[in-house]
Amino acid sequence: MRVYFFFLFLFFATLSFAQVQRIEPMHWWVGMKNPKVQLLVYGENIAGYTVQTAYSGVTIEKVNKVENPNYLFLDLNIAEQTKAGQVKFEFNDGKGKKFTQAFDLKARRTDHLQLQGVNTSDFIYLIMPDRFANGNPKNDQVKGMNEMAVHRDSMYSRHGGDLEGVTQHLDYLQELGVTAIWLNPVLTNDQPRTSYHGYANTENYHVDPRFGGNEAYKKLIDESHKKGIKIIQDLVHNHVGTEHFTIKDMPMKDWVHQWPTYTKTNYREQVQMDPYAAAVDKTIMVDGWFDRHMPDMNQENPFVRNYITQSHIWWIEEAGIDGFRLDTYAYNDLEYMAEWAKAITAEYPKMTYFGETWVHGVPNQAFFTKGNKINQGIDTELQGVTDFQTYWSINDALNGKSGWMEGLTRMYNTLASDYLYEDATRNVVFLDNHDLSRYYSVIGEDFERYKSGIAWLLTTRGIPQFYYGTEILMKNFADPDGKVREDFPGGWQEDKVNKFVASGRTEQENEAFNFVKTLANYRKNNPVLQTGKLMQYIPENDIYVYFRYNEDKTVMIIMNNQKEDKTLDLARFSQRLDGFTSGINILSQEKVDNLTSIVIPQQKTLVIELKK
Amino acid sequence: MRVYFFFLFLFFATLSFAQVQRIEPMHWWVGMKNPKVQLLVYGENIAGYTVQTAYSGVTIEKVNKVENPNYLFLDLNIAEQTKAGQVKFEFNDGKGKKFTQAFDLKARRTDHLQLQGVNTSDFIYLIMPDRFANGNPKNDQVKGMNEMAVHRDSMYSRHGGDLEGVTQHLDYLQELGVTAIWLNPVLTNDQPRTSYHGYANTENYHVDPRFGGNEAYKKLIDESHKKGIKIIQDLVHNHVGTEHFTIKDMPMKDWVHQWPTYTKTNYREQVQMDPYAAAVDKTIMVDGWFDRHMPDMNQENPFVRNYITQSHIWWIEEAGIDGFRLDTYAYNDLEYMAEWAKAITAEYPKMTYFGETWVHGVPNQAFFTKGNKINQGIDTELQGVTDFQTYWSINDALNGKSGWMEGLTRMYNTLASDYLYEDATRNVVFLDNHDLSRYYSVIGEDFERYKSGIAWLLTTRGIPQFYYGTEILMKNFADPDGKVREDFPGGWQEDKVNKFVASGRTEQENEAFNFVKTLANYRKNNPVLQTGKLMQYIPENDIYVYFRYNEDKTVMIIMNNQKEDKTLDLARFSQRLDGFTSGINILSQEKVDNLTSIVIPQQKTLVIELKK
Repeated sequence: MRVYFFFLFLFFATLSFAQVQRIEPMHWWVGMKNPKVQLLVYGENIAGYTVQTAYSGVTIEKVNKVENPNYLFLDLNIAEQTKAGQVKFEFNDGKGKKFTQAFDLKARRTDHLQLQGVNTSDFIYLIMPDRFANGNPKNDQVKGMNEMAVHRDSMYSRHGGDLEGVTQHLDYLQELGVTAIWLNPVLTNDQPRTSYHGYANTENYHVDPRFGGNEAYKKLIDESHKKGIKIIQDLVHNHVGTEHFTIKDMPMKDWVHQWPTYTKTNYREQVQMDPYAAAVDKTIMVDGWFDRHMPDMNQENPFVRNYITQSHIWWIEEAGIDGFRLDTYAYNDLEYMAEWAKAITAEYPKMTYFGETWVHGVPNQAFFTKGNKINQGIDTELQGVTDFQTYWSINDALNGKSGWMEGLTRMYNTLASDYLYEDATRNVVFLDNHDLSRYYSVIGEDFERYKSGIAWLLTTRGIPQFYYGTEILMKNFADPDGKVREDFPGGWQEDKVNKFVASGRTEQENEAFNFVKTLANYRKNNPVLQTGKLMQYIPENDIYVYFRYNEDKTVMIIMNNQKEDKTLDLARFSQRLDGFTSGINILSQEKVDNLTSIVIPQQKTLVIELKK
Repeated sequence: MRVYFFFLFLFFATLSFAQVQRIEPMHWWVGMKNPKVQLLVYGENIAGYTVQTAYSGVTIEKVNKVENPNYLFLDLNIAEQTKAGQVKFEFNDGKGKKFTQAFDLKARRTDHLQLQGVNTSDFIYLIMPDRFANGNPKNDQVKGMNEMAVHRDSMYSRHGGDLEGVTQHLDYLQELGVTAIWLNPVLTNDQPRTSYHGYANTENYHVDPRFGGNEAYKKLIDESHKKGIKIIQDLVHNHVGTEHFTIKDMPMKDWVHQWPTYTKTNYREQVQMDPYAAAVDKTIMVDGWFDRHMPDMNQENPFVRNYITQSHIWWIEEAGIDGFRLDTYAYNDLEYMAEWAKAITAEYPKMTYFGETWVHGVPNQAFFTKGNKINQGIDTELQGVTDFQTYWSINDALNGKSGWMEGLTRMYNTLASDYLYEDATRNVVFLDNHDLSRYYSVIGEDFERYKSGIAWLLTTRGIPQFYYGTEILMKNFADPDGKVREDFPGGWQEDKVNKFVASGRTEQENEAFNFVKTLANYRKNNPVLQTGKLMQYIPENDIYVYFRYNEDKTVMIIMNNQKEDKTLDLARFSQRLDGFTSGINILSQEKVDNLTSIVIPQQKTLVIELKK
């Protein structure tokens, strides 16, 4: 049925629209704050036509012809009081060929737009859509697409997971305490190989039909919102897939960065800030390709800028996205990224976004953020980042490293460096993600450490982010086999176990699940762990103590990284303990009667709400 | 003779000055920009006296009495046109006891004041005065002092080295290419133990008599200046020795930071910038004692501030110091340090100083410097720092580490982080110092690496600093026996070898000496290595390439960190090579005819001046 419809659509399009194969954005809205939109019109020799419209309020301010005659870029101005309806563009080649192209101007939806953004009140759950749950096996293969194989036993093949699968498990996520879902990119990746991961989009306005297409995406968002769960869309400004139509038939030579021979980026963010950087190193960093199958967009090209930025605004308006995650942030043209951010927030002041900054050291990470003082060149307006610095620190600590600058002290030092940010609480903190070895494996499958790290994640500053399956102890290393992207057991009808339900989980998996659930829900219900201030003490004897506190509550966190139980004298912490007489262990619900000293079992992290 | 004179002086002082045992500063000058000076007057029950003077132009603006009646602090104002001469202070207890105390107001010397400051044109040579050369064996022991033993076989005892010994070897230093000498502190350390290192001063206005006293110091400075060598004085703001007279009989309780029981600093600079720091951690960092024998000065006390700052101005004016090195910088009260810097530069605008910042990471180091953007609290006005970050990086590189972020890349990254400074060229770069394991030992006594690191030191940005003896391959590790402070062979008459002369050095030692000499003198004569711009390329295959360049010259430095010879294609470096056709290897004087590719022998660093 689906396959039939897909072909019908292609046939119909070719027949009725004659020279115009695409207009993008596919539609737009009246009443936007920015009256301008630039339409990409694609069709054979379309540049040989004039174009006009009589639609009241719509002005074609400029018709931009580019190197490739198959493209026109129309600069529209949509006056403030313009009514929704179908705009008709009249194309005329002056030699007798004429046709009309319809374009919808819709009324803005407001029902589904929460747009409070993603912030420290949230607990983000990262899902790789192909690997979480297969809600609709019928869309596993879509005829006509470049990659047809479905092999669940291969990490690099498609597995059949989809958005309906996510929608079906919203209750599971809600129970866990999740308040926001970050999906790896969902746009169509019609690439011949490894199309499952989503980072090589070939469409900007279509969710991959194998994930269920735009309708499944909008349904997931609406259903999530009903449960108080936000959706974060993963955006890739830096590149597209080689099968993108603008790559196969490029509007102009400088649509992407072209090189005499394939040139990959050097992956060195340092050149973005190095005062001594050589020009060639800078160019290769930003203009080199991230991957052979991912042409690097030329973000200095204003047509490219418009094309990318408008598609993101379109998705907010069309689907009701709550936040964006920006892939490979450091590889972008930062001036463009600043322009992008201003365009987004001008239209949606409450929209939030954080960038992937797989970079080295706090300053280099802070360099990319909004309002920092160290980037004297440009303010990117980037609100937050994926905090790789705390990620490395907590792993260092949990792996039992110890020393003057290592282990818990590295964790402490990393947070001490927050002075380099305008606001480090906008950072997304995490223990693993789709590119990294799974947390449980990294810490040697040590269950006490596992809990210790999660206690840290849900009590430190920032926006905590989980990777699907960490709550049920999924494991494996990123190298060499990519097995960190295995399917969530129970997401496929044929799965023998179903870990979405307690009965399908082992005792230890349930203990893990419940640990996360308990703390995530405590965090969800207690602003002190969201917006409370942080005070941290220099770690001593491999014990790290910090507090989250506000006017209402104070929570004390004590991490014992030693392999033996320790009694900690609490006198040193009087600045925060004064006025309190007891506490409650949030995880065990045991009462803490004595605030002069406390026993911390080996490798445990205690989370204690203090009582007066 | 010396001993006799010393006792005579004490006797005479006691006799003639009655209740006043000391006035500090010992004298002052007319015509200073700042008309104010605060005299510390010390004598038994001196607070019971009034004090006045009739000296024209000199006003006692305030007589400050403090907790201890043995102290008075006199706020003097010396009017602009006041003549040099001897001020007479009339003391009167109102009960019949009167006496007169003389105080010299001198005319300012200008003959010896170079005061061009220490900058990137310099090559600093650090000398531990007790361990370099014993120019005058007669001052090895000074009767009446607390530590009398001289044991050259013990690292913690005095060895007898002195300032006359340094003066005697200025030609040696000049030949090596040295343009500035940094001496570990020379002030009297009348401590019962380990007084040799100088960091526990018990006098602020006297050079240790075992080093030759003030006259030997002034003579060294004058002789150095004649040879174009500057002198850097090592200052300790943070603490004094327990035998300091103001400690043995304290002016007031809060002269130093006092604790119920001995409390040492936590040695964590992070609390200076951590936005989440606990108050107790901050207090212990700054107010805790650096060492049990080094009381921590209370720099919030204005009397302490004046006492310290004035002594430093005194030494500039008295002896003609060219620069200061500020010990344990991060442990000081930064507000005081800013006030200190402003006082120094207000009086001597060209004076330069750099702080010891044994801290972790570039931002934490930059945090302490003048004009950085990351320290939002205070601008310390500190011009430069001892650059521990490049020190660790070059050692990492030379020790053969390799990896995405290690080895040469760590070196590259550290310099890339210079964007965090206002001006990183004010930093002092080094391979070792008196607190660190000796460079030659750290790199495993590998002679090729030794030369490679020195080539880096003398061609990278900043002010290069050498530690005495590194040029003759002195070795040993800081732990556990402190043998990095061994005597320079030949500095004592009884030494069997004399490495101050070529004939006393082994062939390899001469090769080392000549390597340093060649490059240091090339640097001295070529501003391109002093003030030229730097451009660096991302290291590839363990080869690091950078350039120093100005309008006149371009120098290419290529460091091959591999254990095999490598042919390097130079096409990548066209941005700097364009216009040049050949080069000259500065160290071998060989011509480089081919600028398309070059062979770099294993572990070598080539320094090539390019030719058109």
